Amino acid sequence: MLGQIRIVMIHTTHPGNIGGVARAMQNMGLTDLCLVAPKRFPDPEADARASGATDLLASAKVVETLDEALDGCHLVVGTSARDRHIPWPVITPRQMASVACDLQPGKRMAILFGREDRGLTNDELHRCHHHVHIPTNPDFSSLNVAAAVQVIAYELRIASLESEPGLLPQWGTAWDIDLADARETELLFEHLEKTLVGVEFLDPDNPRQLMTRLRRLFLRAVPDRVEVNVMRGFLSAIDKVLARNPRMKGEEKNDV
Amino acid sequence: MLGQIRIVMIHTTHPGNIGGVARAMQNMGLTDLCLVAPKRFPDPEADARASGATDLLASAKVVETLDEALDGCHLVVGTSARDRHIPWPVITPRQMASVACDLQPGKRMAILFGREDRGLTNDELHRCHHHVHIPTNPDFSSLNVAAAVQVIAYELRIASLESEPGLLPQWGTAWDIDLADARETELLFEHLEKTLVGVEFLDPDNPRQLMTRLRRLFLRAVPDRVEVNVMRGFLSAIDKVLARNPRMKGEEKNDV
Repeated sequence: MLGQIRIVMIHTTHPGNIGGVARAMQNMGLTDLCLVAPKRFPDPEADARASGATDLLASAKVVETLDEALDGCHLVVGTSARDRHIPWPVITPRQMASVACDLQPGKRMAILFGREDRGLTNDELHRCHHHVHIPTNPDFSSLNVAAAVQVIAYELRIASLESEPGLLPQWGTAWDIDLADARETELLFEHLEKTLVGVEFLDPDNPRQLMTRLRRLFLRAVPDRVEVNVMRGFLSAIDKVLARNPRMKGEEKNDV
Repeated sequence: MLGQIRIVMIHTTHPGNIGGVARAMQNMGLTDLCLVAPKRFPDPEADARASGATDLLASAKVVETLDEALDGCHLVVGTSARDRHIPWPVITPRQMASVACDLQPGKRMAILFGREDRGLTNDELHRCHHHVHIPTNPDFSSLNVAAAVQVIAYELRIASLESEPGLLPQWGTAWDIDLADARETELLFEHLEKTLVGVEFLDPDNPRQLMTRLRRLFLRAVPDRVEVNVMRGFLSAIDKVLARNPRMKGEEKNDV
């Protein structure tokens, strides 16, 4: 889907923003950048802000008119910061991303970004099927154009990733260790309870909720096998100290 | 919810990025910015890139250590670009935003952003309950720090707009105890390490990944205040046993 998206920057004034847009696009896997009558391009400032996305910048298509920029595009979305005199269908970046996922193969969607100072003109906005609005803080709504492209491109990338079958492993990351099974975990709690009594932190005659709280703590983390072994090893080390140490009764107990 | 979020920038080199972050934050309605030992701040470049978000920039707290930055925070999330030697629970920006929506009233979440060149150190990442990863293009994954904050702040804003004012409690259930804050949790780890050495389970000359694995285990559970106190009490009980027991050197160490 990302290959069906064209980012169109119209009458951009600062070449640094073009570079920032190129970097944001490449970060998110977009490749098709079209510049309508940029004030200064190519420009060293653009290369600097692109910081590595220079191929994308070099492949950017520079045209004179919006018509040329929309050549071969089937769906046109305009980014709009402010309310318009004539209301237009406004979608969120996330809705726009799901629209992009519905693009038929071979169809292209153009997303228009306007001038740094005034955004898109009404004529330009009236070329659009949808307007997309990034819900910024009403008291401070002016988004830098590269930041706006960053947000739009991010939503497109997330939608394209979610549309693929993706199995998230445990805790959202590839884990290094097998999960402990229920038996291993129970043996840990048995050992823990024994040692808690050994160090006289747990009073068998007055256990209160101690083991329950410790169970809740450890189980919430869903320990893996090495973590259980580490805890067992810690407990065994405590047991060793206890083994060479006479139990002293009647010490004051720690309060829970 | 947005008022419960603190953005923490660690050892930022370029003041322009601090300004860009301030602008991104204010665009999305975040207000709490903390800078850990920035290289140059305040700086005209920061003011320029902030373009209007100067109040937020002026109110940014500058501290020397991460501990100070995490003062009063209960949930710590680190932004991480690359895979770690020991995997950590990784969530997406959207999952992070829903975690933020689950914050109980008065609880604060810190989101850590690292150096422009090297990101966060392992020590810094090991202070985090979660790592958040922005799924960038694997072939071009280096996100500008202001762009990363833009994406994270955008997801937070969207989630806050979508979420009811009725706050979901931690872990999707009404909890009985306050979350431990970052300082209380760190004191637990300091105590744990000391006691692990005391019982000769942790060899200071060969610590291996022991503390890292234990941090990962406990932080994954996001301990509450009583759970931390229970663990501290357990450790104190072990310390008492050790206090009346002569250390015996040269025992075989448990393997991890």
